[in-house]
Amino acid sequence: MVKRTTGPEIERLIQLLAKLPGLGPRSARRAALHLIKNRERLLHPLMVAMEDAHDKVTVCSLCGNVDTIDPCTLCTDPRRDRSVICVVEDVGDLWALERANAWNGLYHVLGGTLSAIEGIRPEDLSIGQLIERAADEQVQEIVLAVNATIEGQTTAHYIIERLKGLNVATSRLAHGVPVGGELDYLDEGTITQAMKARRPF
Amino acid sequence: MVKRTTGPEIERLIQLLAKLPGLGPRSARRAALHLIKNRERLLHPLMVAMEDAHDKVTVCSLCGNVDTIDPCTLCTDPRRDRSVICVVEDVGDLWALERANAWNGLYHVLGGTLSAIEGIRPEDLSIGQLIERAADEQVQEIVLAVNATIEGQTTAHYIIERLKGLNVATSRLAHGVPVGGELDYLDEGTITQAMKARRPF
Repeated sequence: MVKRTTGPEIERLIQLLAKLPGLGPRSARRAALHLIKNRERLLHPLMVAMEDAHDKVTVCSLCGNVDTIDPCTLCTDPRRDRSVICVVEDVGDLWALERANAWNGLYHVLGGTLSAIEGIRPEDLSIGQLIERAADEQVQEIVLAVNATIEGQTTAHYIIERLKGLNVATSRLAHGVPVGGELDYLDEGTITQAMKARRPF
Repeated sequence: MVKRTTGPEIERLIQLLAKLPGLGPRSARRAALHLIKNRERLLHPLMVAMEDAHDKVTVCSLCGNVDTIDPCTLCTDPRRDRSVICVVEDVGDLWALERANAWNGLYHVLGGTLSAIEGIRPEDLSIGQLIERAADEQVQEIVLAVNATIEGQTTAHYIIERLKGLNVATSRLAHGVPVGGELDYLDEGTITQAMKARRPF
């Protein structure tokens, strides 16, 4: 027999909040309680923001960024350098580079890394689209800003192979990114240094 | 000039998520991205759960618990002992006692503690209602399960004063070494209390 403390609606809210990265079962409970206590000041605005995100957010058909317009804010920004493309694994990495103000070119979000173990093949990532974009004569350099993990580096090497024959330079982020580290967890200073010191492959 | 990475809808979602306890600006960003990526599996169900909570959750008019029914699940549970009331500062404390299966009586949520600094007076808490409930001849004991902080203890002493003259016993939670706790990491106050309250094997 399960002893019930509260209504099933609250339990469901707690369970769903616990699925967010960074919230465990206990902090999800605190978050749910905080929402319930701040119904008009937080719960309602958050509901509206989530509905907005649900209805309007889309994936950019050019670079894979998430945004409410397609092509996205970055792809359509006339101030950005269209001759250079920075390749990242994930949208979170793109955001990390933007927070660091480390890049003023375009981006390309792969959507993950190659992985034999997880069965992720080149056609599961947006590598084909990247090669197409790289073939545009306007594009002069591709920066492979993948994570400094085995999967990230494997993916980078695969992409470099595919880019051979195209008239485009390739580079990688400078080491300074800790081996095994992920961009999204790095401080802005390190990210900026790594971007500045990028080296040709 | 602010460089925009993404739509204002996503920024707003991040800002609101960052107001949840346990989520900072960075983890709010990860949470927002996770929600956007799992639109149908998580974002939508969470929206629905929040709407449910927003529309249905209410505060129990007897004990101050949050629930979807009033009186709440606990106040209406016929298996619970109605002769004993456990007084807690906050609904989170009530949930903690329930998780621990530590109590089978009723509860009373104060809604905070007395605080001269923050200007929280007895009439700002549900102390009046507690005294009314304690006057019911069915009630035999009031357990003051407030936090072991100065504010908590001040509040407990104030309530005990107010309860004088009523035919009701009062008690507080035992102080001592937490189960699984190590002496070396405990503060002196706790160790002193634990030693004073030592029990024969």
